[in-house]
Amino acid sequence: MCLYTIGRNMGFITKAVNDVEDPLTESQAIAESIESRGNNVIKLNMGDPAKYFRTPQNIIDAYTNALQEGKTSYLPGQGLMELRAVVAERYSDLYRLRFGADAVTITQGAVEALDFLNRSVISKNDSAILLAPFFTQYLPYILLQEGVPLMANYDEKRGWDINFEALERTVKKGKKPKYLLLGNPNNPTGTTLAEGSLRRLVEFANNNDLFIVSDEIYDEIIQRDRFISIGQVASGVPYMILNGASKNYFATGFRIGFSIIPGDDKKSAELRHAFVKLAFSRLSTNVPAQHAILEGMAAKKEHAAFMQTVLPKIHGRRSLAAKLVNESGFLNAVMPDSAFYVFAKIDFEKLNLKDDREFVGLLLKEQHVQLTRGSSFGMEGYVRFVTLPEESQIEEAIARVKKFCKNHEK
Amino acid sequence: MCLYTIGRNMGFITKAVNDVEDPLTESQAIAESIESRGNNVIKLNMGDPAKYFRTPQNIIDAYTNALQEGKTSYLPGQGLMELRAVVAERYSDLYRLRFGADAVTITQGAVEALDFLNRSVISKNDSAILLAPFFTQYLPYILLQEGVPLMANYDEKRGWDINFEALERTVKKGKKPKYLLLGNPNNPTGTTLAEGSLRRLVEFANNNDLFIVSDEIYDEIIQRDRFISIGQVASGVPYMILNGASKNYFATGFRIGFSIIPGDDKKSAELRHAFVKLAFSRLSTNVPAQHAILEGMAAKKEHAAFMQTVLPKIHGRRSLAAKLVNESGFLNAVMPDSAFYVFAKIDFEKLNLKDDREFVGLLLKEQHVQLTRGSSFGMEGYVRFVTLPEESQIEEAIARVKKFCKNHEK
Repeated sequence: MCLYTIGRNMGFITKAVNDVEDPLTESQAIAESIESRGNNVIKLNMGDPAKYFRTPQNIIDAYTNALQEGKTSYLPGQGLMELRAVVAERYSDLYRLRFGADAVTITQGAVEALDFLNRSVISKNDSAILLAPFFTQYLPYILLQEGVPLMANYDEKRGWDINFEALERTVKKGKKPKYLLLGNPNNPTGTTLAEGSLRRLVEFANNNDLFIVSDEIYDEIIQRDRFISIGQVASGVPYMILNGASKNYFATGFRIGFSIIPGDDKKSAELRHAFVKLAFSRLSTNVPAQHAILEGMAAKKEHAAFMQTVLPKIHGRRSLAAKLVNESGFLNAVMPDSAFYVFAKIDFEKLNLKDDREFVGLLLKEQHVQLTRGSSFGMEGYVRFVTLPEESQIEEAIARVKKFCKNHEK
Repeated sequence: MCLYTIGRNMGFITKAVNDVEDPLTESQAIAESIESRGNNVIKLNMGDPAKYFRTPQNIIDAYTNALQEGKTSYLPGQGLMELRAVVAERYSDLYRLRFGADAVTITQGAVEALDFLNRSVISKNDSAILLAPFFTQYLPYILLQEGVPLMANYDEKRGWDINFEALERTVKKGKKPKYLLLGNPNNPTGTTLAEGSLRRLVEFANNNDLFIVSDEIYDEIIQRDRFISIGQVASGVPYMILNGASKNYFATGFRIGFSIIPGDDKKSAELRHAFVKLAFSRLSTNVPAQHAILEGMAAKKEHAAFMQTVLPKIHGRRSLAAKLVNESGFLNAVMPDSAFYVFAKIDFEKLNLKDDREFVGLLLKEQHVQLTRGSSFGMEGYVRFVTLPEESQIEEAIARVKKFCKNHEK
């Protein structure tokens, strides 16, 4: 270890940054070049609901008012006190969780909370457990700290439920992980975990002294009756929830995330303090956007009405995409019930293609459809479809994918 | 070194984060408690021009329009192409520097560029040169990377010019530093460097193979005829400029920074690529704010007219504060010519106080004036005054400081 440390960074750029991939955008330049030749690229690669459904007008108006009222100076790093309080209130309303504004830090998107989390607890060679497939950005902030991701996985055969056998094996491998991070509802699979699985996970965490981090940013984009937050079942286990305005409030470009660390145990208290310090270090998040989201969250009736209009469309498009993908003859996906993704296994036995990278790269070049490869979510051999565009776009995209597969059929 | 590495992180929180200080806000809780008892605290601790001068109305209106037009989805991580182009144009207009939009990354405040810089080039035990006194946030992002700050300094006796003797000694100490970071105009001293000093610095950097980072975020808040950017003199030396909308466009709460890496040398190209990857990793900065600043920078006449109204007030208040501080009998400051700070040496020979921390702490408790201690800028024995409030507030604050000093006179 010591020999490796000395002299490992002889160049100008650190090894950690050299190792950072850019999976979401690796094909962006190719897509732009195709478009510059006058061709239409169907982009099913960015989970951006504000692109397909406008940000609610009451939030836009609140943002405008904050600006016109001159709310443009710095706020404390942890965020607008009233917004932090209304985030706490949301968790009381939806999940009967009781915590105060002190538990909440407003971050620059949920991704900054991932950054803060890893900076706070991961030093060189420290480890953390990820369950594949996972949101692409769970990985780079571990690697930037020179940490070690320990891979477990969900089980496709059981509807992407947690694979507890794999989890047991991962923990027994050795190094005590600093946290376990799960995405629920899951990006890319678009599935949610049942209460029983969450309870079993909490028991597992209790037995292994694990801090649980639950990314619940899609917790209102669900088809089933109710979503179970980790906070409802995490008795005795310290945990953190990631959430934000991007998906539930259709405000991706605002960059407003919520990180919630409610426990009064020692780990939670230390992590909360670390977040406050890191938040102060970068001064403040965008201020008028915080006022806008405060208004949007406080206007509960308007929010419910908006969701009632929009969610059926989102569910309809997701279901349509899943159905068409499964009818294609070359791809298979577990039926998703949340978020706006379909994560499909590629049947390489039928195709003259070697891996998901080649599949996605050639599909873009030949059929002008942009997907994201499964390997960037930690699971080789799959592709993720974003299912937010209108039905006609989804139909056209999947028809092109089918044509692509036929052209490369064995 | 190896013994130190092993087992240094036994707790939940990393040593690096445990070590992060919070100097700008360490007295915030005390100030709030004083205010909650109905007392008025004069806060001269945050350099926030949007608090004392409203953000220009054309920028507010452009922001509003962007929102109403639905510009609320993600942008590429590097930022809005048109904004990056207009930032490049600004450098052509003001300094005759020629580079394209590719050289520019839009960051979440200039502070995120400090974060990206240190993540890109500082691994454990790598070093960087800081010149004290320096902006507080230059330090934490070095420490978070477990890097080593090498301290040189400016020379108060020569009007806060660079102390080249100290710089020579610092470089000779050993470890090859990854960069030298200077603030020009300087926060906290409110002084600017003459062309001769910059040329000597470039020669020094050339001789020592140093990458120069120049934080020029106050480059339009200047009293002298013209400001010299590092880019105008840095022939042959790779460099990076930090700037942003916070100070020159009175938009602190927007969190829009510009990082500029124009060189076609290897180090610059590598750092530019590292910035693109780190910017993609956190997805996007606030999107409508980028459109607002684009409009604000493109409207050059409006900007010039706004500055003509506001700058005389800023210069007047800063000069008044410096004059009153120097007449106090207990403090002495080099006359500042830029930004909105006065950095004053405390005459401890006349006072029954032990250091700047005690000075600032007791001043807040006894006289309800909030300043920032010099030691948080890397220079013990000084205090920084923010000189943005109206004259009457500045007069009252400095009268209270004088009273405080008399109460603690030897």
